[in-house]
Amino acid sequence: AAMGGLGLGVWGWQRAAMATSEEGDEEEEELQQRFMAPPVSGLRELRRRRRELRSRMELLIMETQAEVCRALAELDPGATFSVDTWERKEGGGGISCVLQDGEVFEKAGVNVSVLSGLLSEEAARQMRSRGKPLKAKDGKLPFCAMGVSSVIHPKNPHVPTVHFNFRYFEIEDANGTKQWWFGGGTDLTPTYLNEEDAVHFHKTLKETCDKHDVKLYPKYKKWCDDYFYIKHRGERRGIGGIFFDDLDSPSKEEVFQFVKSCAKAVVPCYIPIVKRHCQDSFTPEEKLWQQLRRGRYVEFNLVYDRGTKFGLLTPGSRIESILMSLPLTARWEYMHTPPERSKEAEILEVLRNPKDWVH
Amino acid sequence: AAMGGLGLGVWGWQRAAMATSEEGDEEEEELQQRFMAPPVSGLRELRRRRRELRSRMELLIMETQAEVCRALAELDPGATFSVDTWERKEGGGGISCVLQDGEVFEKAGVNVSVLSGLLSEEAARQMRSRGKPLKAKDGKLPFCAMGVSSVIHPKNPHVPTVHFNFRYFEIEDANGTKQWWFGGGTDLTPTYLNEEDAVHFHKTLKETCDKHDVKLYPKYKKWCDDYFYIKHRGERRGIGGIFFDDLDSPSKEEVFQFVKSCAKAVVPCYIPIVKRHCQDSFTPEEKLWQQLRRGRYVEFNLVYDRGTKFGLLTPGSRIESILMSLPLTARWEYMHTPPERSKEAEILEVLRNPKDWVH
Repeated sequence: AAMGGLGLGVWGWQRAAMATSEEGDEEEEELQQRFMAPPVSGLRELRRRRRELRSRMELLIMETQAEVCRALAELDPGATFSVDTWERKEGGGGISCVLQDGEVFEKAGVNVSVLSGLLSEEAARQMRSRGKPLKAKDGKLPFCAMGVSSVIHPKNPHVPTVHFNFRYFEIEDANGTKQWWFGGGTDLTPTYLNEEDAVHFHKTLKETCDKHDVKLYPKYKKWCDDYFYIKHRGERRGIGGIFFDDLDSPSKEEVFQFVKSCAKAVVPCYIPIVKRHCQDSFTPEEKLWQQLRRGRYVEFNLVYDRGTKFGLLTPGSRIESILMSLPLTARWEYMHTPPERSKEAEILEVLRNPKDWVH
Repeated sequence: AAMGGLGLGVWGWQRAAMATSEEGDEEEEELQQRFMAPPVSGLRELRRRRRELRSRMELLIMETQAEVCRALAELDPGATFSVDTWERKEGGGGISCVLQDGEVFEKAGVNVSVLSGLLSEEAARQMRSRGKPLKAKDGKLPFCAMGVSSVIHPKNPHVPTVHFNFRYFEIEDANGTKQWWFGGGTDLTPTYLNEEDAVHFHKTLKETCDKHDVKLYPKYKKWCDDYFYIKHRGERRGIGGIFFDDLDSPSKEEVFQFVKSCAKAVVPCYIPIVKRHCQDSFTPEEKLWQQLRRGRYVEFNLVYDRGTKFGLLTPGSRIESILMSLPLTARWEYMHTPPERSKEAEILEVLRNPKDWVH
């Protein structure tokens, strides 16, 4: 289902709508306005269970996907956006929206997945970064995992790459009690350092966090710098942002409201930066440096990223949706070292020694 | 030390020779003829201990490096070959020879490393694919690891990529007994299938193995197909070759002679294929398919390859020498599927279901 850009909210809809034709016309219209495709759990089911956090989170990730896709399509009107809905044999499915080889964006993927089924104790342990032990009844734990994740690689080397991910997990213990937690974050990977952009990005995140608790931004900013570390290079992947995992306090409602604020902050964090620089002129040397940085992006994602590793190891996971985070093109040169005091050395310095962008 | 191509055997020599200026003129001349740089252990030391297998293996990997580099330089006379000698703080060092952005070769690296020092029990266990338990005296095991490894990525999509590696390990147990083993192999990764090339490559390997034992080729051919498996794609990296690890029987001498035969087979396996196709014409679509296959090469090396993973985790290892196996450029397209019965589908079929090329 690959269609032209400007029909906002209706890409790939014709095909997808057929699957829910039993629903009323009004509902269908509402869906077309709001989402990229019908939700995995079905709109009726989500309405029926609308007070449950699972349903509210699924609506949030669907809305976030649509919001971001619309913002990208507006900036890159000639681009082709493809919308694929897919099912997972073992339970659940997802919706992958990918824009490839546009005018502004080289590759932009926004993926929603809503998975359910049974996990082995081993897999359950791996899902949680600092997990409490989980006891399974027959070695299997019923689980539900949902999230929206996205990587946006622009063409122009003066427009940074952005990544975000918001996820929610539920696992049922042997005695029937449910463990739940949230994870997520947003981070920026520029090819060249632009202080104004870095400050705007981090300031928007800080303001978002501060509305919930002023302790959150410093903590999640540091977690982000620690997580996106390419150990064998001694460099971070980018200039950071926020990252959090295993959030399960103070309450489900409060954590959900925080995650919702973060999801709503993606567009104001990133889109102004794209608008500011997508018409900037650039040299072939700047494009080359971008390609070398893309190589580092690949190294992080394939060697260290927990989400990618978990996805590659999970039976029935959709490889194309996991690896859509990889750039369209990347480059590796042996012993490439930028000259001292160059713009290339400037960004490397910040990747080696993360800075505080807001105080 | 980056120098022009045709001065066979003397690239980077001026600088390197200074380190061994205490050696006689004759020795120096011999070295210049035979090797890319002075051996890590020093020529005198190698001569003094010439009956020990360690010394004979170091000479073999040095000769293999020089032989392959000369063959490449002859095919790509205008290319720049760089020779870097490096030391490892914890013990040992290496010589990395890299040709980048030539006429025929996009990126070709041939690396020798000779490392020694102390290993943790955990690291010792990881080194061996199916290891016998090793008991350390104070938690540390004296070890020696040496090898030559190479990946050669040509420009023309009708010339396949080749990889080879030959390595030798010694680890000393708590009670002073030494465990030793060899590993290695050679394998081919074409962008398009050429049956004649595939048969030539495998036949040359089979003939090499058969001289030692007719049971070896079938066993190591299968091991190669099993090892270079990109699980999340359901594809092998290439059309295989031979792969072996943990070889420690029937005797040190016999295994060494086998490894030596394999090392000598690299040039006759590969160079005729390069000569046959390096002038072939190709389309932009063929180049694009090559770039997508390069992406798969990166996926295998970063996600699965034991050597790369071990290298990235080893303190003091030289990252640039480990990652020189990555191609100069690579590409990832979302949901790229070649049309049925196309040349692209033909190679995919062979990567999904490995064939026997010689009977």
